[in-house]
Amino acid sequence: MDISVDCVLFGFDEKKLKVLLIEQRHAGSDRKLPKIQTALPGDLLKEKESLDECAKRVLKELTSLKGIYLKQFYTFGDPKRVQDLKDQEWLRLFRAHPERRVITVGYYSLVKMEDFTPKASSFAGKTKWVDVYNIPELAFDHNDIVDRALDIFRHELVADNIGFELLPEKFTLSQLQHLHEIILDKKLDKRNFRKNILKGDHVTALEEKQQGVLHKPAQLYKRKNKSK
Amino acid sequence: MDISVDCVLFGFDEKKLKVLLIEQRHAGSDRKLPKIQTALPGDLLKEKESLDECAKRVLKELTSLKGIYLKQFYTFGDPKRVQDLKDQEWLRLFRAHPERRVITVGYYSLVKMEDFTPKASSFAGKTKWVDVYNIPELAFDHNDIVDRALDIFRHELVADNIGFELLPEKFTLSQLQHLHEIILDKKLDKRNFRKNILKGDHVTALEEKQQGVLHKPAQLYKRKNKSK
Repeated sequence: MDISVDCVLFGFDEKKLKVLLIEQRHAGSDRKLPKIQTALPGDLLKEKESLDECAKRVLKELTSLKGIYLKQFYTFGDPKRVQDLKDQEWLRLFRAHPERRVITVGYYSLVKMEDFTPKASSFAGKTKWVDVYNIPELAFDHNDIVDRALDIFRHELVADNIGFELLPEKFTLSQLQHLHEIILDKKLDKRNFRKNILKGDHVTALEEKQQGVLHKPAQLYKRKNKSK
Repeated sequence: MDISVDCVLFGFDEKKLKVLLIEQRHAGSDRKLPKIQTALPGDLLKEKESLDECAKRVLKELTSLKGIYLKQFYTFGDPKRVQDLKDQEWLRLFRAHPERRVITVGYYSLVKMEDFTPKASSFAGKTKWVDVYNIPELAFDHNDIVDRALDIFRHELVADNIGFELLPEKFTLSQLQHLHEIILDKKLDKRNFRKNILKGDHVTALEEKQQGVLHKPAQLYKRKNKSK
């Protein structure tokens, strides 16, 4: 059996939550294979690297960012997860042992989209950000992997108050609420949201207000505990 | 590379939180190998089984219980996790490819200890319950696996209100508080604990009180949402 790592990289552009996908094209022939395969960034684990090292390597090839939020969230081991005919045809193009069962360890990661432009890399012909609520059909079980990453991200957003990585360092409570609404895909009550956030002791009010707005600039906050 | 599944089975006997360990003995020779190896129950993944199926198989061989709480919590992939000299000597006794790197997927599980007596099984010479705060030196990285399972269990106990599997179906709030204190390894304030549990809407008061106590029998509760 082979082991791989696949990364669900969530990005936020202050309006939408997106996932980074890679597009691979093959050189063409008379096969019925579609010319483009869309998938999550990932790679086979190398003999001497740990799972975390492999996830960091995959992300570094794409983002060149260091120290971004990265979390192992689930391992996918369906015996038939790479055995679909269309997936097998693709694997035959670039894997030494396309027929082998592959267990993949899923990581998810959070970045502000303004922070970087994804690069082409050794395993990705082309990269693109896709709205998380409009993901096309992906290779292998990658749609399931995105779904589960989003479930776990939603759960941890609320239970552990993560997600600040997607905002500017200084933000208004409206920006934070908007982020939560996009990720949870529902409207939240403004008064309850503010009460819970302030009660939870996760943010600190700054001695600053928003710049460049016409009237009533809002209070700026920053995240309190950077250790998580 | 090989894939295995290891199970951290937590049990509670109304006083202590315990973990089920297996003891293997080898037939002896003049090697310097200790005669007993203590480890978590686990096995190599079979070619046609999923990770969940493998975890269920390992638990079923030990417990014959069905439908017990079982959760994949982390995958351990240190390249050297089975390469210690002492571990290699053991692996040579029963593995076809002892030198191969093994990635292991950790599951944890919760049972009431009164529900079953662990059985000997194909992979376990002998099983024993050991106090989670007094675990001996285990094979491979199994001490790390127990530590991480306990961390995650503690986190989910509080964040997701799991853990009811360890109590009788009807319980007092004192029993529930005691369980939380043992798992979290700290005293909790009675008034706050009760307030939070009742506010969290996780338990339902029954029309029943404790039986067989001398005076002031306490109110009995049951878990509200069995779906989790």
